[in-house]
Amino acid sequence: MAFPRSVAIFGVGLIGGSIAAALRKRTPETAVIGIGRDEKRLQKALDADLLTVFGTSAALLSNVEIVIVCTPVDRVADAIRQANAHAPPNAVFTDAGSVKESICRELNDVPSFVGSHPLAGSERSGWENADADLYQGRTCIITPEASSDLTAVRKVRDFWMELGMSIVEMTPAEHDLAVAQTSHLPHIAAAAVARQLCAKYESLVARGFRDTTRVAAGDADMWTAITQANASAIVAQIDEMSSDLQSLRDLVQSNDPAAIHDWFANAAAIRERLTFDRNVAAKVPAAD
Amino acid sequence: MAFPRSVAIFGVGLIGGSIAAALRKRTPETAVIGIGRDEKRLQKALDADLLTVFGTSAALLSNVEIVIVCTPVDRVADAIRQANAHAPPNAVFTDAGSVKESICRELNDVPSFVGSHPLAGSERSGWENADADLYQGRTCIITPEASSDLTAVRKVRDFWMELGMSIVEMTPAEHDLAVAQTSHLPHIAAAAVARQLCAKYESLVARGFRDTTRVAAGDADMWTAITQANASAIVAQIDEMSSDLQSLRDLVQSNDPAAIHDWFANAAAIRERLTFDRNVAAKVPAAD
Repeated sequence: MAFPRSVAIFGVGLIGGSIAAALRKRTPETAVIGIGRDEKRLQKALDADLLTVFGTSAALLSNVEIVIVCTPVDRVADAIRQANAHAPPNAVFTDAGSVKESICRELNDVPSFVGSHPLAGSERSGWENADADLYQGRTCIITPEASSDLTAVRKVRDFWMELGMSIVEMTPAEHDLAVAQTSHLPHIAAAAVARQLCAKYESLVARGFRDTTRVAAGDADMWTAITQANASAIVAQIDEMSSDLQSLRDLVQSNDPAAIHDWFANAAAIRERLTFDRNVAAKVPAAD
Repeated sequence: MAFPRSVAIFGVGLIGGSIAAALRKRTPETAVIGIGRDEKRLQKALDADLLTVFGTSAALLSNVEIVIVCTPVDRVADAIRQANAHAPPNAVFTDAGSVKESICRELNDVPSFVGSHPLAGSERSGWENADADLYQGRTCIITPEASSDLTAVRKVRDFWMELGMSIVEMTPAEHDLAVAQTSHLPHIAAAAVARQLCAKYESLVARGFRDTTRVAAGDADMWTAITQANASAIVAQIDEMSSDLQSLRDLVQSNDPAAIHDWFANAAAIRERLTFDRNVAAKVPAAD
């Protein structure tokens, strides 16, 4: 394994910026090409030493070895097609999108594309919050398919491993079901809890409310795109959770303490056996 | 305002133990009487300098000025009656329970009882995790009623203020509605999210899941007692959240991005305008 000599990042926000920062820290000789829509912000990212080259078009990619698209999920497939039209024949393509099936289906005819989802993020946005260690010690899901080029699969896997990640392989469909449970449903539940809060009780919230709803502050554009892209798994998960909430509601109304206890005890047992060592950064953000 | 010379705490766990620790730190000359069921644990709490006296019966209360009951909510009313039978006529009584209407209704004939709910806690339990600064800078809701003795109201208010808390007064019913939104619904939603997680995806959870579900590790006995004691407000809140989740589900299924965006943007706006300065301790626990 070794770092590629030239990497392009489409979308230099928190996720793309943190990949750039990790590359600049670990392999200063690698060219880091930032592609985006806002030249002024890209210039500032270059001034901050996150990028070595930047531009607004894929025409910069004539010597690139690997392209990582870090745009919102609804723009990933277009960006990969643009990149593929300009990159050399041996280039490989991946993304960092938090849904995989819709993206991989759209790019089924691009064998050098392999879907990725690095399990790391933040409620913050923008490359100003980029963290060179965001990916260190965490898990990256990659979703190769039967149509994928095996060299591309190896190169994408190696790339994330060079950033310090461990790799889990899944089909795109299984990935989307897994993240509906681990990420999308938690976000939706957090948002629903926040939406229930009357303004007059806002001064009474404490640490439990703070933590349970933290992710609800996330970007609404991004979450709209995610729910659209993973609609069927999300609808199924909302239905399952609603049905489970209904069962608790009925137990509370009929005052069945033994069954209420079992409901909470099962949740506590699941929560307590989780370990967050691999996917949670050791440092806790100062803000919040 | 001044500290009382003798305080009794029924139930020396995290909440009662933290009150004891705050008293020992702020007013070493005050007697701190611990009443509980397990003499060995009370002896250890005394050895740890949280208590100055302990016992298993209210017979110790002949000179007490204020009694704070920190037992689970389903045992508060009994403990207050026991204390009232042994304490001198000028003693005042309060509790730290997270529901108020059922407790205050049961104790409507005890004018020297004023319900309290200090908004501070932890997912940890036991006096070993007691924190002398748990209440510093946070809010305490007190729920006096028309039948309450005004001197008792003043003494209970002053007691929490001496521990560094600011005071909000509400009726017991309004308190229970407020905490259903700020505390009980977040706990139930966190538990429901944890219950949806398949075992095979447990290794994929990251920081969003961790924070959203943190409170779900709470004690099932305590949460069973809370849901029983605040059943009607909790049932109403579950119904409202379920209906709101159903509306999002339908928007996702019918693919209405503008309305999905509004749903998430409203949640983000509510979450972002919350400030946690008053009710959230500055230090973040090392565990989790």
